[in-house]
Amino acid sequence: MTQTRSESDSFGPLDVPADKYWGAQTQRSIMNFPIGWERQPIAIVRALGVVKQACAQANKVNGTLDARLADAIIQAAGEVIEGKFDDNFPLVVWQTGSGTQSNMNANEVIANRAIEILGGVIGSKDPVHPNDHCNMGQSSNDTFPTAMHIATAMSVRDVLLPGLEKLAQGLEAKSAEFKDIIKIGRTHTQDATPLTLGQEFSGYAHQIRQGIARVHACMPGIYELAQGGTAVGTGLNTRAGWGEQVAANMAQITGLPFVTAPNKFESLAAHDAMVFLSGALATVAGSAYKIANDIRFLGSGPRSGLGELILPENEPGSSIMPGKVNPTQAEALTQVAAHVMGNDAAIKFAGSQGHFELNVYNPMMAYNLLQSIQLLGDATDSFTERMLLGIQANEPRIEKLMRESLMLVTALAPEIGYDNATKVAKTAHKNGTTLKEEAIALGFIDAETFDRVVRPEEMIGPKA
Amino acid sequence: MTQTRSESDSFGPLDVPADKYWGAQTQRSIMNFPIGWERQPIAIVRALGVVKQACAQANKVNGTLDARLADAIIQAAGEVIEGKFDDNFPLVVWQTGSGTQSNMNANEVIANRAIEILGGVIGSKDPVHPNDHCNMGQSSNDTFPTAMHIATAMSVRDVLLPGLEKLAQGLEAKSAEFKDIIKIGRTHTQDATPLTLGQEFSGYAHQIRQGIARVHACMPGIYELAQGGTAVGTGLNTRAGWGEQVAANMAQITGLPFVTAPNKFESLAAHDAMVFLSGALATVAGSAYKIANDIRFLGSGPRSGLGELILPENEPGSSIMPGKVNPTQAEALTQVAAHVMGNDAAIKFAGSQGHFELNVYNPMMAYNLLQSIQLLGDATDSFTERMLLGIQANEPRIEKLMRESLMLVTALAPEIGYDNATKVAKTAHKNGTTLKEEAIALGFIDAETFDRVVRPEEMIGPKA
Amino acid sequence: MTQTRSESDSFGPLDVPADKYWGAQTQRSIMNFPIGWERQPIAIVRALGVVKQACAQANKVNGTLDARLADAIIQAAGEVIEGKFDDNFPLVVWQTGSGTQSNMNANEVIANRAIEILGGVIGSKDPVHPNDHCNMGQSSNDTFPTAMHIATAMSVRDVLLPGLEKLAQGLEAKSAEFKDIIKIGRTHTQDATPLTLGQEFSGYAHQIRQGIARVHACMPGIYELAQGGTAVGTGLNTRAGWGEQVAANMAQITGLPFVTAPNKFESLAAHDAMVFLSGALATVAGSAYKIANDIRFLGSGPRSGLGELILPENEPGSSIMPGKVNPTQAEALTQVAAHVMGNDAAIKFAGSQGHFELNVYNPMMAYNLLQSIQLLGDATDSFTERMLLGIQANEPRIEKLMRESLMLVTALAPEIGYDNATKVAKTAHKNGTTLKEEAIALGFIDAETFDRVVRPEEMIGPKA
Amino acid sequence: MTQTRSESDSFGPLDVPADKYWGAQTQRSIMNFPIGWERQPIAIVRALGVVKQACAQANKVNGTLDARLADAIIQAAGEVIEGKFDDNFPLVVWQTGSGTQSNMNANEVIANRAIEILGGVIGSKDPVHPNDHCNMGQSSNDTFPTAMHIATAMSVRDVLLPGLEKLAQGLEAKSAEFKDIIKIGRTHTQDATPLTLGQEFSGYAHQIRQGIARVHACMPGIYELAQGGTAVGTGLNTRAGWGEQVAANMAQITGLPFVTAPNKFESLAAHDAMVFLSGALATVAGSAYKIANDIRFLGSGPRSGLGELILPENEPGSSIMPGKVNPTQAEALTQVAAHVMGNDAAIKFAGSQGHFELNVYNPMMAYNLLQSIQLLGDATDSFTERMLLGIQANEPRIEKLMRESLMLVTALAPEIGYDNATKVAKTAHKNGTTLKEEAIALGFIDAETFDRVVRPEEMIGPKA
Repeated sequence: MTQTRSESDSFGPLDVPADKYWGAQTQRSIMNFPIGWERQPIAIVRALGVVKQACAQANKVNGTLDARLADAIIQAAGEVIEGKFDDNFPLVVWQTGSGTQSNMNANEVIANRAIEILGGVIGSKDPVHPNDHCNMGQSSNDTFPTAMHIATAMSVRDVLLPGLEKLAQGLEAKSAEFKDIIKIGRTHTQDATPLTLGQEFSGYAHQIRQGIARVHACMPGIYELAQGGTAVGTGLNTRAGWGEQVAANMAQITGLPFVTAPNKFESLAAHDAMVFLSGALATVAGSAYKIANDIRFLGSGPRSGLGELILPENEPGSSIMPGKVNPTQAEALTQVAAHVMGNDAAIKFAGSQGHFELNVYNPMMAYNLLQSIQLLGDATDSFTERMLLGIQANEPRIEKLMRESLMLVTALAPEIGYDNATKVAKTAHKNGTTLKEEAIALGFIDAETFDRVVRPEEMIGPKA
Repeated sequence: MTQTRSESDSFGPLDVPADKYWGAQTQRSIMNFPIGWERQPIAIVRALGVVKQACAQANKVNGTLDARLADAIIQAAGEVIEGKFDDNFPLVVWQTGSGTQSNMNANEVIANRAIEILGGVIGSKDPVHPNDHCNMGQSSNDTFPTAMHIATAMSVRDVLLPGLEKLAQGLEAKSAEFKDIIKIGRTHTQDATPLTLGQEFSGYAHQIRQGIARVHACMPGIYELAQGGTAVGTGLNTRAGWGEQVAANMAQITGLPFVTAPNKFESLAAHDAMVFLSGALATVAGSAYKIANDIRFLGSGPRSGLGELILPENEPGSSIMPGKVNPTQAEALTQVAAHVMGNDAAIKFAGSQGHFELNVYNPMMAYNLLQSIQLLGDATDSFTERMLLGIQANEPRIEKLMRESLMLVTALAPEIGYDNATKVAKTAHKNGTTLKEEAIALGFIDAETFDRVVRPEEMIGPKA
Repeated sequence: MTQTRSESDSFGPLDVPADKYWGAQTQRSIMNFPIGWERQPIAIVRALGVVKQACAQANKVNGTLDARLADAIIQAAGEVIEGKFDDNFPLVVWQTGSGTQSNMNANEVIANRAIEILGGVIGSKDPVHPNDHCNMGQSSNDTFPTAMHIATAMSVRDVLLPGLEKLAQGLEAKSAEFKDIIKIGRTHTQDATPLTLGQEFSGYAHQIRQGIARVHACMPGIYELAQGGTAVGTGLNTRAGWGEQVAANMAQITGLPFVTAPNKFESLAAHDAMVFLSGALATVAGSAYKIANDIRFLGSGPRSGLGELILPENEPGSSIMPGKVNPTQAEALTQVAAHVMGNDAAIKFAGSQGHFELNVYNPMMAYNLLQSIQLLGDATDSFTERMLLGIQANEPRIEKLMRESLMLVTALAPEIGYDNATKVAKTAHKNGTTLKEEAIALGFIDAETFDRVVRPEEMIGPKA
Repeated sequence: MTQTRSESDSFGPLDVPADKYWGAQTQRSIMNFPIGWERQPIAIVRALGVVKQACAQANKVNGTLDARLADAIIQAAGEVIEGKFDDNFPLVVWQTGSGTQSNMNANEVIANRAIEILGGVIGSKDPVHPNDHCNMGQSSNDTFPTAMHIATAMSVRDVLLPGLEKLAQGLEAKSAEFKDIIKIGRTHTQDATPLTLGQEFSGYAHQIRQGIARVHACMPGIYELAQGGTAVGTGLNTRAGWGEQVAANMAQITGLPFVTAPNKFESLAAHDAMVFLSGALATVAGSAYKIANDIRFLGSGPRSGLGELILPENEPGSSIMPGKVNPTQAEALTQVAAHVMGNDAAIKFAGSQGHFELNVYNPMMAYNLLQSIQLLGDATDSFTERMLLGIQANEPRIEKLMRESLMLVTALAPEIGYDNATKVAKTAHKNGTTLKEEAIALGFIDAETFDRVVRPEEMIGPKA
């Protein structure tokens, strides 16, 4: 009874689990890199399937790869894309910096599965060889960066943008809902002139809308694929037009507008497009941070906080304080935002550290970027669903705070001058009185004029 | 004999130097913030001049500001723009987070200068008041962010883009110059398949070209100006159309396509456009880092390094080692790049920390962003001028290294298979022999075929 | 046939999987936080077991908790410590920032297991209630930070320090092995005066030794535990001496010198001890980065690099280039180092963001710090084992490069002056000759004196 | 009439300003590095004076340097230490990464000043040569790192620690002053159980006290000096004992416990001690951030914020809103804190980027670290002086908020169980009633017991 089979590479034979399709290089990587708990993201695994399928298609058309072998590889790669082999990609992030071992993992799994399809013996490399056939016209140095871009683009489309869009729409809906509620503004955390709650939320919505636009502005670089550069960017062992061909295939498979990168030397030696996108992610993370933080403060209480918003209650908040409810969705989102800032720092560092024809921080950069994408997409979705959409305005409280504000004095300044207006505000503050009382007492204005000038509903926009 | 004069604000009178135009609020800030050695950048000072001039123009046209006062303010602000009052802006970066004190510094200097122009008594606030007239229709909360964007846009145009463009052109020129020099490629810092030195430099050039494009992609957000939002974004104390008017004036003054921001709440409470630009700067800093680092390694030696490039000799390199010459321009540029990464982290942090209607990290964010712009522009210019353009290829050395490379075996793989090719390379490595000797000895190929297949000049691109 | 059972909390009943011990609050968290793929680290889960056991022990001794209940809780918590319930902690990192839900996960699992031990009905909260008994004298606000410190301290002891110690010893062994090999030094990546290869490695070893010392310098703060602060740091619902008691129990359980924190307000509202430790981790990550990077460059080749070191060959390096071998362990370690820098940025950000009596970035900070600890420990172990210990010096190459170096001229400077020595070096460089030839030709020295003065073996230390 | 004189180095003659003491290498650096506006910090300039004086003293005692020359150098270096030549150090930060040019700047200024003292001709290098005499036994590679450590240690002693100590004492004084004021606690920004305002401030004080301890924990590494390593760490061109000698001299000159570094290879090739210190600075910056942010929120208002603290009014806060006063010192401090985080990122990046025997990020690392030290010292001093010490508690407001809090229910939980207590709190929240009313109405407790159990003054510590 055997539970392993023998596979081999140029370093010799190795036992691998009999129920897995991977080969010796994958197994060797498992043995050589017992580091951490972070595996290659599923998005990378499936993107490698896209790469292998697209290349086999092109090799079949070119005639460089036997059609029978090509078809088996195409089928096997398709199964990787569908997720049937997710558990055949055991490698960790912290391996060779080129991702060669994960590329070989894909080559080995697909080769063995193709052999199986063709009725051969798994592990025999016959009739399908992981390098000669599955990797034909490819190097890890172009394959893995291509998979990084494909995984990024798919995750942006499928996870990040839906989350951001939902958040933007949620904020816009709340902005509309709250458009007639006049409230006190706060600058420097101190009382300031009024605005509507709808205006306040419109600023949040605009931040996220701009964030979406920034992500889109970064995508053209992500749509450019390294495939075709092979080992150092020259395209050695490919034919002219190969890069264009495989990019077109990848676009067809994924429905995304991939094109071949105009300069493959740059594509292998640097990942600046990912670095730039990471900056956009950190920017929108900062926006989300500000919004979530504002909302938890505006909803602070229930009795001793600012109390302008009533936040949804989702779960018990404390193991010791009975009845406590907390803004937990805001906490999840702000934690995610802070984490994305850290990922951005790591990505920027790694992005600068290429040497000559290759940057060997591939798996680490991909892991961080894909994590940022996933977390921002998930957390904005959850925040919108479970916090934002359920927010109610505490109108009596908002009205009370707004009416008491000393900063309504600002409307007086054009009338009586900045210096006199200052005296009014300072005196009312000192005496705990109203602006009106003091403005009249100081002789700067009469009651009627005061009432005409100091009207919050006139203070929420320019004069017509 | 007096060397001071008295100025006052709502907190009372203060002595200010008699030969300066600033007033009490500026002086109070000097007294209250004895922190660090970093003053407001000159670019901010002059941008405040632009703001004040543009606003006075609009106020004059609107009729809200007496034409005589307006003209004096316009003239005085023009002198600030020209740099005549650079030494009248003594405030440090580490002041109130809104930049109010620097806005008041501009108001006070311009008011006193306008008073002087109009024949009044400096310090009298008559006939020109720093708040009522110089700050008319404005708040620090829109003025300072506007000045931040103006200073950023001008510095990008005048310092950053020229530096990057020069570097890109220099790299392109070298790529063309080196287009026929075939050299060994290096991946993982190990020998790899060949490419031309021109191709290697084309990758560098492409990185910088993309960097320029990324900076441009960030500029639309920078061209959107907060002016018109006043205290909290509502535009209180302005008239309808004011934002559009002043933005048009600012565009006219600077020659840059400024427009009014579509959502002023966002413009005051967040500076995401600057955060996004900072990410682009950090991305291009990473590119510059990689390029400069490659070049110093390729030029390492003179006798014990890689030695493929001969670097210009600009100055003595060592106080103890006679005759030593170092790649100092690469060192300046990589130091700048590392510093820009730090600035980016600071900007991202601060950008997320707005509260309600205002972000109070204005001076700090502006300082860091303007510093990054200045340093990247200056350092890329200097690097290009003093290092890049003087680089020569050490052709005999390049030829020798390339010919000896075992990785030329890659061309054999499609012919004899990956596994056999591996045996050839490993045997030659072990025996210190050539690929050809071992390929023949192992019986995989004959001499003639070897010579036909393994030709570096055929290995620098796809097969036709 | 039922596969779920009903559990309830103050928000109502919920179905949970029948084969799991968790309750309604855990299930609610699963539903409310579908964010990302990162679960609470196992180290946190087990540390929560330590907390619950230590508290039940103290409550039993105090008499506040019935002995029968206490014993069941102690047993159940012991099983959590042993890892028997790892799969009963399904919650993600991105939940409430206090970690309340994971604390309740521990309370619920232990309560149900204790009920089971005592023959009760799981889910009945009788006779063991998750809050009243398992959480007795505790709040998530002290429990979770305590678990963070315990998990950190155990991981530092069990994973990080062994890895760093192994690396330090490996470097010291190589330093001793290479002590007599004189080689060229390199500064600015350019040729410099000689040193021994052993000296070079002694610098690496010293970096790591200092790194270990820095980690130790941070541990006293980690050994201080928040337990006893309960909700806001006051210790409400505990008895005097409780903090000391439970810390002593935790020390006993783990074998680590835990003590109660001297100020619980700080312990809940800030996690500065973790921030400081993160800085030490990033420092040693930087050291590891430098060492690994040096080693890959010194081992670059095999034919076109610096080639002073011969690196172990662990696996095939390329899917396209036959026979290629790469410094993959150095790549894993440098990727880890870059990642740790990112984690440090995230931790520093989060650490500054506490509000009032609580910092709500607990799970995120713990995740990042524990990840850094695990990765640095694992990666330094693997790097030492699979790369460092197998390094051989390429002595002929080292000797050749050293002999040719122009920087041996430095020994001449005290003899003939810096300016004349410069002329010698520059002339030899220009003419491609030796220092000796040119020194004599320029008339600065005779052959005999030259040979006496310029002796590499005399240049590797101060004069006696 | 001449305003320049000619100076020369191995690259030839150059004109330098006649009224300055610097020579050709300094002038060449001015010409070659027109980058940015950041000059070498004064602390570095004066530390270079310390280095040159200490070395000349040792060389005189050793007899390697003529006593007459030595005395002149010692005198000239003393004048640099005193600040008499601050304006003779014009070089920017962004120069060669070893700081060689600033070391030569010191050598040249001191040589020319010594020549002047000895009656020679400035620029003649006779009788004092900048390299042969001023740099005797030294290399920039040990001199500049030594100056970095000296400048760091002096700035920590003279600027940073006084600022932090003042802040710690201020917080402790306020903690004592506020020890009897019971207030509501806040966790998750939501109402929580009570504590005293003094306890809240004690947490702040403890953070800073720990921060001071962390800085001290980093200083031993800073006190270790590279001097004696010369070019690559071997100490070539020194005599045995030189490192110990000069370190002792430096300790004597500065009053700080400097010692010679135990491993000079590490001292030149890495600056880990500075990286570690930077981490401690970022940690205390995070503490300061939290404290300043809390205080501005607790002092928010004057009418629509939390309003528990009354903050000092230092200056007008708004150019548009009359009478507005803002927490500007908190803003300066939080801006500084965010900036220090950025500096830390830059330092960590640069610290990892040494190559072989040298790290060439010296001036950049020194600039960032010294800036962090200066800013934190200045900003904490100013914050304490102008904000913290003037804070008053708004006792009526604090009392009111505390009494209304629903979280006082926590004291009931041990009495009536967590689940029942939850019902009380939720019902009171829903009905806008008091806990007491609802607890009685729900039949969980009688009025007398309630009054005995729910007493805020009993809730601020463990039970005796």
